Order: sequence, then C-alpha cells, then structure tokens
Amino acid sequence: MAVYTHLGADDLAGLIAEYNVGSLLSAKGIAEGVSNSNWLLETSGADGHGAARQATRFILTMYERRIELDDLPFFLGLLDHLAARGGPVPRTIHDRSGAAFRMMDGKAVALIEYLPGVSIDRPSPAQARAVGRALAGMHVASADFAATRANDLAPPDWQDLFQQCGSGLATINASLPRIVETHLSAIMAGWPDDLPRTTIHADLFPDNVLMLGDDVSGMIDFYFACTDMAAYDLAVTHAAWSFGGPGTMFKPEIGQALVAGYEDIRPLTQAERAALPLLAQGAAMRFVATRAFDWINTPDDALVARKDPMDFVKRLQFYAEAGDGPFTPAPR
Amino acid sequence: MAVYTHLGADDLAGLIAEYNVGSLLSAKGIAEGVSNSNWLLETSGADGHGAARQATRFILTMYERRIELDDLPFFLGLLDHLAARGGPVPRTIHDRSGAAFRMMDGKAVALIEYLPGVSIDRPSPAQARAVGRALAGMHVASADFAATRANDLAPPDWQDLFQQCGSGLATINASLPRIVETHLSAIMAGWPDDLPRTTIHADLFPDNVLMLGDDVSGMIDFYFACTDMAAYDLAVTHAAWSFGGPGTMFKPEIGQALVAGYEDIRPLTQAERAALPLLAQGAAMRFVATRAFDWINTPDDALVARKDPMDFVKRLQFYAEAGDGPFTPAPR
Repeated sequence: MAVYTHLGADDLAGLIAEYNVGSLLSAKGIAEGVSNSNWLLETSGADGHGAARQATRFILTMYERRIELDDLPFFLGLLDHLAARGGPVPRTIHDRSGAAFRMMDGKAVALIEYLPGVSIDRPSPAQARAVGRALAGMHVASADFAATRANDLAPPDWQDLFQQCGSGLATINASLPRIVETHLSAIMAGWPDDLPRTTIHADLFPDNVLMLGDDVSGMIDFYFACTDMAAYDLAVTHAAWSFGGPGTMFKPEIGQALVAGYEDIRPLTQAERAALPLLAQGAAMRFVATRAFDWINTPDDALVARKDPMDFVKRLQFYAEAGDGPFTPAPR
Repeated sequence: MAVYTHLGADDLAGLIAEYNVGSLLSAKGIAEGVSNSNWLLETSGADGHGAARQATRFILTMYERRIELDDLPFFLGLLDHLAARGGPVPRTIHDRSGAAFRMMDGKAVALIEYLPGVSIDRPSPAQARAVGRALAGMHVASADFAATRANDLAPPDWQDLFQQCGSGLATINASLPRIVETHLSAIMAGWPDDLPRTTIHADLFPDNVLMLGDDVSGMIDFYFACTDMAAYDLAVTHAAWSFGGPGTMFKPEIGQALVAGYEDIRPLTQAERAALPLLAQGAAMRFVATRAFDWINTPDDALVARKDPMDFVKRLQFYAEAGDGPFTPAPR
C-alpha cells in the first residue's frame, strides 16, 4: 500500500485534459498497489453523447518501475479485449490521440475505468463459485487475444529466486531450505507442458476481485497476466482463496466451489484434472519463492508490508499430502 | 499517508449496517491522515426520502490514537454545527441510534460526508482570496458553537516540545537551538491575550482545503480545531499558504489575497491587524516545534514521511524581519 509520487492538482488537471473525460472534480491517493501509485479520480464526464458508458470515476495508475513499460501494451490491451467481451474487467481509457498510456515525469501513467465492489476476505461457497466462473470466463474470452507474454514467474524462475536467497532462506525459517529442496525438484520434474494454454491472470487473490453480493463485479490488477496453462491459473486461485482460519486450514467447501464454478463455464480436461495437485504445489511454491525473496530484500523502512513466506509453505505441504481430494467436486 | 488497520469487507458491511446509508458498494483505503486510517466508501443510499441530501459517498475515519477519543464529540459536533450553517464542511453521519461515532475493535470510527474538490498546491490569488473568505466564514459561523476546547499547541506547549527535543535540536541543524532561543521568548512575551476568540481550524494547510475552480468546496481535517484567537488562525493559514517556489520565497500576492478575502467576510480589528506579524511568527514557530519533535521521534521505518522543520524556520525568520508588509492589502 503506498502512493510513491506526489501529484499536485495542477499535474492531475493537466493530465486529465489529455482525455475526453471532462474536468477534474476529486482526486484521492489510494492505498493499493505494491509497485504502483494509484489515485481515485472523479471527473465531470465526457463531452458528447457517444455509445460509450459515461464514466466519471477512474483509477489513475502511475507505474513506478521502468521494467513494466514494455509489457504495458499487453496488460492494457488485455483489459480492453476482456471488457469488450463483457467481462467484469475495467476498460483502459485512451487519450485524445488514442494512446492507452502516457508518459509523465518519465513514468508511464494509465487511466482505467473504476468498478464498484468490495474485496471479500472470507468468501462464502457461492462467492467462491462466482470467482471460479469469472476466472473460466476470462480464459474463454482471452482465447482470441492475439498478444502473448511469457510467464516470468515459471518454475525455473522460482529456482533462480531461491538461489538468490542463498543462506538467507534459513534465516526466515530453519526448515525452509530443506522444504524447498524436497519439493522443488519433484514439482519441476513433473511440470506439464501439454495442457491447454490461454491468457491467465496468475495472481487472482481476493484483493484482486471486487464483489457485489455473490457476484463478481470486477477482476483487477492484471500485472502478472501472461500466456500459460489455464489449469495453473485455477491452481493459483485455489491456493489463494481456499485457506483461512486458525493454522491457515484448508476450507474444502471453498476449494470445491472454485473448481465447480470454473467447470460451469469451462470443463477441465482429464489431463488438467490429473495435473491439479502438482500445479497447486507449484502455485504455492511460486508464492513461497517471491515472498522469501521479498522478505530478504525488502528494507526495514519500506512502505510495503512484507508477507510471511511460511504461510504458503503450509499450503505447499498440504497440497503435497492431500492428493486430488481438494479438487474433487462435492457430492451432489 | 497510511492505512494502519486492515478492515475486511465483512467488517465494513457490518459497520455500515449500523447507519441508514444503504448497503456497501465500494471501499478504498485512502492515503490521507497522519494518525488516522481512512477509507472512501460508496453505498446504495439511505432508505426513504427525507430532507437530508442523499449522500452515497463517505469518508470512514478510524481514530488510531486513544488520546483523541475525549475530543471526538467536539470535533464531530463542530462539523455538524458548521455544515448546518451552510459552510463547506462535511457533515458527520450519525448512526441509527444517533451516535456521532462508534467503537470498533477498541477504536473510535466515524462516518463523514464525502465532499468533491481537489487540494491546490500552488493557489492563484483568486483561490487564496476564496480560502481567506472560507476561513472567516468558519470563524463567524462558529461564534455560537457552545463547546470549547483548549489549544494544546499554544506557546507554552511549543516550549515543552523544544525542551523534550533537548540536544536533538542541534542534530537537525546546528543553528536551530540559537534560532529558537532568539525568537521564542520574544514571541511568548508579546503574545496577545485580549484578541477576539472563536473556534479556529488551526491547521488550514492546502491539503486540508478542497477546491473546485476558484471556489472552496470543502474544509476538512478539523482535528486541531480549538478555541483560540481568530487572528492566530489567519496567521497560521498565511504561514501555510503564502510561501513557495525556489528557496521557499514569500508570495506577496497570495498573502495579501488571503487577508483581503478574510476581511471580505470578517474585518479585522485594529488590534488584530497590529498583532498579525507576531502571530505569524508564532504560527511558524508552532510548526517548527512539532516538526522538530516529530523529526527526532519518528522511527526510520515509520509509514509517515517526516517534514523538514527548517522549512518553517525560514518562514519564521521572514516574518520576524518583514514587519506588517506581508499583511497589508495590495493597493487598489
């Protein structure tokens, strides 16, 4: 959570004038985004009466890391592609020249549609089922999205991250090096390469889903989106949503609802279903890797709270022991 | 800027149910407030068709410091008093039982009307004049506000803060102890006690004023409000708004516009006008004192950016040398 850059009212009003959204009425820096700065803007609305929805609220994102610039056309184009197909995804607002992002003080900024809804920490099975459906809908809708982006957090990248952690891994938890060694080679050896691929979100945690009641009103924060196995995205979502309560226990009714919702829209193949237990171990390992790296490399005075890697170690161990039970639909 | 407490959607929906504002549609943690956590909420709107404006957007504030609890009825009551008189001040939304604030996990929370507008870093003279008018309007409108609150950042409190800084003062700047010694006793010796008193904002910096064009659409963050001299509030506002650019130069056209706007609504007495140069030195000293104390006592890993005390040392020295020039209306 952070706003890394101060933008004054003059800066913001000048930026907004480059878009056909009316004049600036309000701007609040919002406490979201780990590597970006975000503002919630309200404007007086576009001129004219086009077919476009008359949005007056927007999220302005400033991309603080240069590295993301090359990938921005992919991320912002994906939002447009999915929104055009009716998905619960915010549109990218293009400026008067048609550009999806602009440069400001050497950083890229994009104006993105605001969507209502709240992030649900403790979903009901009905809500989890809606999340599964929304994820499958995204996979189906992105089948004809032409652009591709390699997953830069694939198994070899986890291995690199652990190697960069070096002896620091044991400072997080004495058992962590052994746990990683035990599981990583098995996951990599069994990692499938022949499952159906599409554009995946790859980070669909509860804080990236907006809900109104039992409906998904928005999927946001596509900045890990890439071209990879659809079933891996379901595994990531399963690992992200299905645990909670004392000792980070598995909640079977949530995991089952996610899979059932997914299959409401896109039934899994036999091979995908068989791969889910290993994919879920991989999903857990991916978050152990990035969290361990961030734990070791985040300065103590950073504005960002570090996340405990051991939380996902528990999920990894659960998936390694549980077999295919966590993915089996509940008896009807 | 910070959100210190995580509130899940369940927590927020449960809280909102205690108010007649409809159901929760959106919640964003916002990067405002140094000692409070703030969320921008959107709801479906109140039941029924009362005379009250149908607000659907609110700021939810969680007061993170226990010390403020005793003062909350004063602060929240003042908002209601000023809003009822048509001032550009957010109303406090009372819960179904009529309470202006509620307790949640041991902390007080209040639901406050959202106001449009943006904070202006570099005001025009017309905007400064509007700010002066709004400040005077608040002083006039609070004349019949019955509650009182002592100013706990009065001259003796500055002295206490400097004493607590001790030898730390010189670590900020080697000349700072001498500068404080030179000016503080003179300010305290000449501090008036017979000027008109009212309820003052006491912290009307640009980020506490929302503007739409040249109009003040909101004055916010009344958590330093207290019963003190009206002219001191004008001096604080003058010190807060009238400097900028290279070397934090005084901008005479802004300072003059603030005073002129103030006198559009509430003409200063002869004694108030004569006191302004000393009151402005006091206003600058007040911010030197709190910023020096915070500079020394803020941990390096705090979420809050420290503000440089030397910025207000320059303003103090400017006011000490400039006499009554900075407060003289421009020739017409």
